Amino acid sequence: MTIASGSAEGTVRIAVLASGRGSNFEALCSGDTGRGRVALLITDNPGAQVLKKAERLGVEAVYMTPGRYRTRFGIEEEGEWVSFMRSRGVGLVCLAGLMRILKGPILEEYGGRVMNIHPSLLPSFPGLDAQDQALRYGVKVSGCTVHYADDGVDTGPVIVQRVVPVMDYDDVESLSARILEQEHLAYPEAVRLHCSGRLAVRGRRVETCTGS
Amino acid sequence: MTIASGSAEGTVRIAVLASGRGSNFEALCSGDTGRGRVALLITDNPGAQVLKKAERLGVEAVYMTPGRYRTRFGIEEEGEWVSFMRSRGVGLVCLAGLMRILKGPILEEYGGRVMNIHPSLLPSFPGLDAQDQALRYGVKVSGCTVHYADDGVDTGPVIVQRVVPVMDYDDVESLSARILEQEHLAYPEAVRLHCSGRLAVRGRRVETCTGS
Repeated sequence: MTIASGSAEGTVRIAVLASGRGSNFEALCSGDTGRGRVALLITDNPGAQVLKKAERLGVEAVYMTPGRYRTRFGIEEEGEWVSFMRSRGVGLVCLAGLMRILKGPILEEYGGRVMNIHPSLLPSFPGLDAQDQALRYGVKVSGCTVHYADDGVDTGPVIVQRVVPVMDYDDVESLSARILEQEHLAYPEAVRLHCSGRLAVRGRRVETCTGS
Repeated sequence: MTIASGSAEGTVRIAVLASGRGSNFEALCSGDTGRGRVALLITDNPGAQVLKKAERLGVEAVYMTPGRYRTRFGIEEEGEWVSFMRSRGVGLVCLAGLMRILKGPILEEYGGRVMNIHPSLLPSFPGLDAQDQALRYGVKVSGCTVHYADDGVDTGPVIVQRVVPVMDYDDVESLSARILEQEHLAYPEAVRLHCSGRLAVRGRRVETCTGS
């Protein structure tokens, strides 16, 4: 059994890594994250809307180059992201629409303290276009999953899942919107659980320790 | 678009094919199946408890040999099951814990009119030991799926899914029991929808036609 590294005392400083609109960034800033507090936003996209949201919310926000690849980090650049997060005392990394695969340094430094959110009930529909995958499959329920990140694509241990119905009339837009509402509840909940210091990972199962 | 073959008028005679306890058989006999009525039970297991349940419920029940294989039908024997169902005016086939892969004749005769139930939220955890697969993966929600059968394993178009939480303290037994309660609601519901004549299959999506 591994005790997840949420601190049982004091504040856990959170870095959110995002590439786009940043609605989950906003939810993490405004939701009940317990001891967790969003202290930093880093984006790989200098035009990302999330930069403006961070400014408005008074959260330190920076663009950092991810290197020359389109869908993954350069190894050196990822190391620079880690250095910067370390300099800011970051204790938990939340991926929120970062369109880029981690190559090593972030997971090496923050193993067991990197979370991701995905718009399906994993292990169904990992990877890109999860909502479209769900509609094409014809499921009657879908939802979202917050999980610890590992070196696979959407494969890490599950912390929280929330469910939505899929309606006959749904298209990608309407289903995505319904799932997004639940993402905004699920992500703060997962952070709160982690930061309580009470989560334990047994095999792949993430359990909440009870007792004093 | 394919209109599923539920009759809009009159009774739909249902054959349940089962190998074991038959709790879903019982749920289909006692639940609200709309125009559907369980008229026949066939089992490949002469010692199956479901035979006694059928006797108690006054449903015609027979053991028929499935042939010499352990996990699939003999092609000739499966044809005999079809002939027998045809002789009884069966319009819908419900697989309920039949531990055997269909080889052709049943799907050829009853294509689009064969349902199966599976104890997971497909496409997660198809095949054997779905509840154990779910616990090992560490999902926070699971459930059951009623789907039209095709020639894959748990791959056909989804009619109904129902959800249950997975608890930290769950083992296979407790999770299976919680899912089974939902199976007993989901299967009659799927049959009722089918027999209403209002289900349509578009691609893989099963939709309910509205209107007069």
